Amino acid sequence: MASAARHVLTAQDDDFPRWYQDVVAKAGLAENGPARGTMIIKPWGYAIWERIQAALDARIKATGADNAYFPLLLPQAFLQREAEHVEGFSPELAVVTHAGGQDLTEPLVVRPTSETVIGDAMSRWIQGHRDLPLKLNQWSNVVRWELRPRLFLRTTEFLWQEGHTAHATGPEAVDEMLRILTDVYEPVLRDLLAIPVHIGRKTRRETFAGAQVTYTLEGCMRDGRVLQLGTSHYMGTNFAQAFNIRFLDQTGHRRHAHTTSWGMSTRTIGGLIMTHGDDRGLRLPPSVAPVQVVLLAVTREAIDTCERLASGLTAAGVRVELDTETTVGFGRRAVGWELKGVPVRIEIGPRDLAARQAMVVRRDRGGKQPYPLPGLLTSIPGLLADIQDGLYAEAERRRDAMTEVIPSVADVDGFGSFLVPWDRIGDDGEAALAEQGFTVRCLLTRKLRMPAYGEDADLLAWVARAY
Amino acid sequence: MASAARHVLTAQDDDFPRWYQDVVAKAGLAENGPARGTMIIKPWGYAIWERIQAALDARIKATGADNAYFPLLLPQAFLQREAEHVEGFSPELAVVTHAGGQDLTEPLVVRPTSETVIGDAMSRWIQGHRDLPLKLNQWSNVVRWELRPRLFLRTTEFLWQEGHTAHATGPEAVDEMLRILTDVYEPVLRDLLAIPVHIGRKTRRETFAGAQVTYTLEGCMRDGRVLQLGTSHYMGTNFAQAFNIRFLDQTGHRRHAHTTSWGMSTRTIGGLIMTHGDDRGLRLPPSVAPVQVVLLAVTREAIDTCERLASGLTAAGVRVELDTETTVGFGRRAVGWELKGVPVRIEIGPRDLAARQAMVVRRDRGGKQPYPLPGLLTSIPGLLADIQDGLYAEAERRRDAMTEVIPSVADVDGFGSFLVPWDRIGDDGEAALAEQGFTVRCLLTRKLRMPAYGEDADLLAWVARAY
Repeated sequence: MASAARHVLTAQDDDFPRWYQDVVAKAGLAENGPARGTMIIKPWGYAIWERIQAALDARIKATGADNAYFPLLLPQAFLQREAEHVEGFSPELAVVTHAGGQDLTEPLVVRPTSETVIGDAMSRWIQGHRDLPLKLNQWSNVVRWELRPRLFLRTTEFLWQEGHTAHATGPEAVDEMLRILTDVYEPVLRDLLAIPVHIGRKTRRETFAGAQVTYTLEGCMRDGRVLQLGTSHYMGTNFAQAFNIRFLDQTGHRRHAHTTSWGMSTRTIGGLIMTHGDDRGLRLPPSVAPVQVVLLAVTREAIDTCERLASGLTAAGVRVELDTETTVGFGRRAVGWELKGVPVRIEIGPRDLAARQAMVVRRDRGGKQPYPLPGLLTSIPGLLADIQDGLYAEAERRRDAMTEVIPSVADVDGFGSFLVPWDRIGDDGEAALAEQGFTVRCLLTRKLRMPAYGEDADLLAWVARAY
Repeated sequence: MASAARHVLTAQDDDFPRWYQDVVAKAGLAENGPARGTMIIKPWGYAIWERIQAALDARIKATGADNAYFPLLLPQAFLQREAEHVEGFSPELAVVTHAGGQDLTEPLVVRPTSETVIGDAMSRWIQGHRDLPLKLNQWSNVVRWELRPRLFLRTTEFLWQEGHTAHATGPEAVDEMLRILTDVYEPVLRDLLAIPVHIGRKTRRETFAGAQVTYTLEGCMRDGRVLQLGTSHYMGTNFAQAFNIRFLDQTGHRRHAHTTSWGMSTRTIGGLIMTHGDDRGLRLPPSVAPVQVVLLAVTREAIDTCERLASGLTAAGVRVELDTETTVGFGRRAVGWELKGVPVRIEIGPRDLAARQAMVVRRDRGGKQPYPLPGLLTSIPGLLADIQDGLYAEAERRRDAMTEVIPSVADVDGFGSFLVPWDRIGDDGEAALAEQGFTVRCLLTRKLRMPAYGEDADLLAWVARAY
């Protein structure tokens, strides 16, 4: 069986990008759409997205933000109101020039973000200090023309949430930008997706177009490359000035608001795949798995027992799927569920029935173990929790093992990522790194003793090849 | 206060379309986007949509459909594969001709529905009879160029769900088309939105482009006009032929699948407004109201008591908002909550505190009633249920009072709608009605005795002016 599964996918060590393509296709997550760079998210992939959405949405609402919806199509003039912003997005825009059977007098841009139209709305909705803070969030699709599209990671259209808040003061806005990282994004990545991240500030070079400060959450993938999983920006008063977002303060003065924006997208699914997947397919953390336990009846005699177990598990709040396709080869079915990454597979055949037991297979570690049928139900929730914690711990260990602490960028080379004192890199060093295909993913404010190098560092750059 | 509220909105009797515009704006539901015909759904409107979505989504999943996501941008050639379909949508298409800084060699259409790209995917995903039925649903935005846009009712971009299913046989597909009406749409309209509907078949003239049969759910608005709230179509094998959706049946023959499609959109919010709203603003059925009870502290002394009540109501599962803006005029606050349609307003002022009571105002009927504070909590759930039922019953009574049973279309005139035996109208009669601004909204299979006219009718046409 191990060998059967291996034939289905390219091995990670042989060709990681190819393995990724294979697993996205064979696990039924997504496929290419008919227009270049577009994506069809298939039911298994979309069910994962729905769980990510639900977790994010609850935490976003808990910050006091309200959901709203802004239009897909925007007048081109809108984007031009913030100079850096338009410069950042111009090369990626898709433009509607024809509609309703006629050429449009003013072309419409398909939103690359809703930053501008939300800024414009804020200028109407905010009048006095009582209207602040104003916290909005939107779930939507956006379009950015991608030259080298890859499913989930870089697609011409993607799904995401974008949050936009306006505040009376800079410190308040900065707090909000940080709160989104610690209260919304990091907990969802950790508790739902079991993805460990480093959270840090972006260098000037990597800061979002129009922002004063960008913070990011970055995860280390199994090939040693690093993936940006979410960002949160403090725009200062840049957008407020461009869009005239002003309020009358308590002393009767009209002042510009300080704004933030923050987003997380379907790209997180790419991160989930590349953090946990192995040569047999996906490995889904139980919290995000659309199906947590699959009950596989090896032969028809086992169907009754499987159904009873399924009812029991469902009643206990476990997401269960019953596989009673006994006319399909058992090995093929088992391989299929492994590919899809279902955390626990329970197999019951004639010999198991006779022995009043079930074979339990953990997707994280593999290996079958017999469990007596009495008591099986009660042991499953603990097993799922153990898998959830184990996947996080494993990913964290792997990341740390692939991260080398080095004193200067002269040593950056080959596989994995590097922690380097930022004062040893600087803007020039960053430019030099870029030529070698490395970027500073983020700056970590962390006291790190480097006795081997006879010094301590306060601000570390996480240097890596990025997705 | 009554007079204050009346000044805020145009009266329904004076100018219903204007009243509608006023209430959409002043209740904070939506406003026009910067590009013509587009819409910004504001937090209050979007919170209503989220509740509609959640109710529909749960019922759609209960039918066995899986959510998936298909691309926004489609090659033009895709739409041309089904002749009637392309003819139906061509005048409404928005076209992207320029992207990523270049002119596109093949223009891309912004989806008016995802019918075609889903049909194409089905042709790949369906191979054998085991793959059937295949049931997919998508939540998304679509774009149809509107010449006379109206917020929620007809907007260039709208949000909706579209379901698409494929089946081995025609009868199975027809059952599915009908099940969506009775198990998904009608219960949500009735139990959540308190909108009574007539469900019936569309005439040939009104059938969806490319469908063999279209069923519809139609609601009567307070001005006597009728609004289409959802549709469900049986496509026969038309789409399967155009998109090559075939399967190997149990006897080894390759056959075309029978498909259905069905959709419901943000238009339902327009229906909600026009079914229940009055001259004071929205009246939201408690099930869909983002806030079911607002606790209004008249003065600062009442804040503590309001907070205690709010905690108690929240614990009882009631959605509560606390209004402690005691520096803002009381009347202005009360009018604001009436505009927004919150079902129950509880006001507490100094005299109420002294009397250990609260004033309770039902939004459906108006009129304040004192409730003793002890026991107030426990009476609220029943009050909300009573308002929910009352709004439905009121809407049903109003619709029936505005619907006249007449023997022939010669009598169709003026205000309200008409039930006419379909065999007395026919295709020619329908064309004649159109010239008077009337349409057959749907055909009702209903035994109706019309003793005044000395006959019985089996198939009745619901004839009305439509939105």
